[in-house]
Amino acid sequence: MLLLADGCDRRLGAILQDELADVSRRFSAELLADLPCVNALVDHIERYRGKMLRPTLALVSGMAAAPGLDGVAPRGNEPLRIIATVVEMIHMATLVHDDVLDEAETRRGGDTVNQLKGNETAVMLGDYLISHAYHLCSGLNMPKVSRMIAASTNVVCEGELLQLANRGNWDLEESVYFDIIRRKTASLCATSCAAAAELQDAGPEVVGDLHAYGEKLGVAYQIVDDLLDLMGEEGMVGKPLGRDLSQGEITLPMIHFRRQASPSQQERMREVLEDEARKRSNGMAAVRGMLCDTGSIDYAHRWSETLVAEARGALAVLPDSPASQLLSDMADAVLTRQF
Amino acid sequence: MLLLADGCDRRLGAILQDELADVSRRFSAELLADLPCVNALVDHIERYRGKMLRPTLALVSGMAAAPGLDGVAPRGNEPLRIIATVVEMIHMATLVHDDVLDEAETRRGGDTVNQLKGNETAVMLGDYLISHAYHLCSGLNMPKVSRMIAASTNVVCEGELLQLANRGNWDLEESVYFDIIRRKTASLCATSCAAAAELQDAGPEVVGDLHAYGEKLGVAYQIVDDLLDLMGEEGMVGKPLGRDLSQGEITLPMIHFRRQASPSQQERMREVLEDEARKRSNGMAAVRGMLCDTGSIDYAHRWSETLVAEARGALAVLPDSPASQLLSDMADAVLTRQF
Repeated sequence: MLLLADGCDRRLGAILQDELADVSRRFSAELLADLPCVNALVDHIERYRGKMLRPTLALVSGMAAAPGLDGVAPRGNEPLRIIATVVEMIHMATLVHDDVLDEAETRRGGDTVNQLKGNETAVMLGDYLISHAYHLCSGLNMPKVSRMIAASTNVVCEGELLQLANRGNWDLEESVYFDIIRRKTASLCATSCAAAAELQDAGPEVVGDLHAYGEKLGVAYQIVDDLLDLMGEEGMVGKPLGRDLSQGEITLPMIHFRRQASPSQQERMREVLEDEARKRSNGMAAVRGMLCDTGSIDYAHRWSETLVAEARGALAVLPDSPASQLLSDMADAVLTRQF
Repeated sequence: MLLLADGCDRRLGAILQDELADVSRRFSAELLADLPCVNALVDHIERYRGKMLRPTLALVSGMAAAPGLDGVAPRGNEPLRIIATVVEMIHMATLVHDDVLDEAETRRGGDTVNQLKGNETAVMLGDYLISHAYHLCSGLNMPKVSRMIAASTNVVCEGELLQLANRGNWDLEESVYFDIIRRKTASLCATSCAAAAELQDAGPEVVGDLHAYGEKLGVAYQIVDDLLDLMGEEGMVGKPLGRDLSQGEITLPMIHFRRQASPSQQERMREVLEDEARKRSNGMAAVRGMLCDTGSIDYAHRWSETLVAEARGALAVLPDSPASQLLSDMADAVLTRQF
């Protein structure tokens, strides 16, 4: 669960732990079916749960948007808990369908649903999660918030489709890369923050700024995620590395490399990538070395740092509170992958 | 588009043609993206459009629930048109994902999305359709109706998961078969009718009876669909036959056969089904012959007739109008597959 930044207000930290435990309970309660075969699948995917970035963004954004008169952290209210559960459920649905897309065999050290039960079951289980997310959300009786959530999932799907249309496109432009990750990853982060603020009756400026905060944070998060796929340690990341490259998905360091590398460096990269066997063993080490030589890894790091700084900047309008401070810390934590 | 029963009120028929054309326009407008790669996919699946059973159920149910003071057919109003578009979009999403589940290569004589662009794109395109259906629905500003729709898609997914869990189960019980098709097919038909009635401010009795009507009709529809997979002509059905059997999915005639056939008939059926080559060519003819000999085809036909009669019976509470008459005719049309 949540790895709170060391400096987090102690009272807020304790409240958040309780709130996230409540989100987990609501998640299970919403998905409970009268069919054992469905419940067994839901039990399985609950193991996918990570650090609950999106529900935490929702809960903390809601608290930061309405910090209460005494300026300390209030507890989340009922609608805030529901929206936090909704965004976790949508995120889980995207993980299940992403694993089908990536033909992934493992996630968080366990078998994926597609590996265990076949693609068919994984597709339907993802649909079941999406459907329940909307079901739970419509129970809020706030059509404006339901529409924000659905608009966001529209954009997430667009991002995934744009990425699929560019699989194997080694000339992917940087602007298209940013467009893909803004849609497929950052949109749901942005909506987690903005929908929570909307639920707290925050004004349009606060809603807009929290949306901008979540979007910047989400783009930075995906850049770091893509960097880890190239540079991480498999044990830490919990899934096989180099998957983007083997799927023909070009990420920011490679885009920089294609722009900066000399013809002979380009030629050597091409050789390594075309050699499947080398790519899977020491090939990755060679790729890493080349990307470091051209400063391409640093380039992507710098982008993530810039975006995190911009995310923090978007918080300026919020009143000071432990919750707004935590949002700022959460942006920093993306860089060190505490989330 | 809609094949209206011969006896349909002429004015109502003309109105419905206009209304369904409007649904098609709304469908395209809702799905329009700022990405050409997405729009090309949407263009492709619009070719899947069939007889628009579900939007027709919604439109006609809405008209029948509020036939107007002069007792003739009113035009659909804005919310009715929206809900008709929503159920068509959800249905289209299930088709796209079903084709992934069935590894289908053709639909309505054209290539499926999975065949053309791969499973990954088909999964994401289905998600895009589902997401837009909820997006459109939440624009109604009627959370109760949004929740009815989402509750229905929950049940549709349960039905699909229950069917997948029973793939290859040759001892499938009749009650489980009915449970599967009630969920995966009949639920959305029932909700198309009930949500439309709810939108027209119909009382709980009318909403409940239209739900029962749609559910009975939907179960009958699926029984007839399953019969066509065994007994139809490929040119007419528009997809390869015998797919249920080759996927290990047992339908009503086979359930009856397993109960009624003599040990030697059972043995012969097992031989034919285990022989892949025979199953694909003259094997199907042998299977048909055996299912006819045991009265198993007739048995399924009788079930569909009974359910259609029950569907018509559920309409008794509605005031007489051309729309309620058309609902009755639509139930009959399921038997002759005009829908």
